[in-house]
Amino acid sequence: MPFTRISILKGKSPDQIRAIADGVHHALVEAFKAPLKDRFQIIEQRTAETLIYDKDYLGIERTDDLVVVHITAGRWRDTAQKQALYRIICERLSVDAQVRPEDVLVYLTLNDKDDWSFGNGIASYVPNDASPS
Amino acid sequence: MPFTRISILKGKSPDQIRAIADGVHHALVEAFKAPLKDRFQIIEQRTAETLIYDKDYLGIERTDDLVVVHITAGRWRDTAQKQALYRIICERLSVDAQVRPEDVLVYLTLNDKDDWSFGNGIASYVPNDASPS
Amino acid sequence: MPFTRISILKGKSPDQIRAIADGVHHALVEAFKAPLKDRFQIIEQRTAETLIYDKDYLGIERTDDLVVVHITAGRWRDTAQKQALYRIICERLSVDAQVRPEDVLVYLTLNDKDDWSFGNGIASYVPNDASPS
Repeated sequence: MPFTRISILKGKSPDQIRAIADGVHHALVEAFKAPLKDRFQIIEQRTAETLIYDKDYLGIERTDDLVVVHITAGRWRDTAQKQALYRIICERLSVDAQVRPEDVLVYLTLNDKDDWSFGNGIASYVPNDASPS
Repeated sequence: MPFTRISILKGKSPDQIRAIADGVHHALVEAFKAPLKDRFQIIEQRTAETLIYDKDYLGIERTDDLVVVHITAGRWRDTAQKQALYRIICERLSVDAQVRPEDVLVYLTLNDKDDWSFGNGIASYVPNDASPS
Repeated sequence: MPFTRISILKGKSPDQIRAIADGVHHALVEAFKAPLKDRFQIIEQRTAETLIYDKDYLGIERTDDLVVVHITAGRWRDTAQKQALYRIICERLSVDAQVRPEDVLVYLTLNDKDDWSFGNGIASYVPNDASPS
């Protein structure tokens, strides 16, 4: 159920991009208990003029290696799970994709069980009654 | 009030893309009672490396014809309306755009009446009092 | 904490694009009291076929100069602050970027304090306890 949009500056190799996407998904599996197969991701590669970021907001030194991770997921996670998610994403991106923890920005948009249809025209996470609107 | 972002892989014809966009909007009009003129849509055409999807999550067989539909809309719809939305999107995309129902992924982000301004610097769906912040 | 995605049609100059991005950020600082350094923005430049809009929904005459502003921000703003935001964005874009108020569409997605990590794997706006999930 998570849907992830990752935005980076152009210039990273396909291997590094794949490692970033893998790392984010791994963190969702570990921290949010997302099923391993529940993987849907978009990667945006942007020019410097179209990805504007502050270089030291909150005292964190960011570089052009910035990785912006926007995750849409169900709202039934608590603060501790979100904290674990942020921590594991940073660990994975640092170890597997050579991204500095300072360069990892994550934000979440949360929704509900009936906000997802993974195919066949059915709300995937609620009982399917055939009643039309 | 819905704002729709449709993400597909490159390679579809302009006619098929337009039929997909038309079909999604039609479903919003029918299931969510969106006004016919309330149509605002972005279509993203992506390379295979930048649109990652699982080929059989929840037992649904997806192909490179995958259509990801992300709709932002007001939260005053109930589960039955959402179910109708998913069903009608699939019907339309199947009939009008030759997209298999298995290849239609829809997810919703819901917000409130005061979260929309359609122009002129005014919150379009709440009474407009001139009080500044 | 706001994250802003601005979508426009191709053809605007880099100076005008920068003025649009500056104006939106200024409005967030003024109306939402966002810190000046809390600036993170993506600008999408789209072809006409991939940015579909209605030319007069709600009686507002839109042109290809349309600027779609999608802001993700914390939900602790009230309606008056949102109204101020829409008004100031339009003022700024009109004065500084020659965008007509009719061509400014803004919508908001709101989330919570623990939905943001600005780096280092930590939830930036909540107390950081080291408890793993």
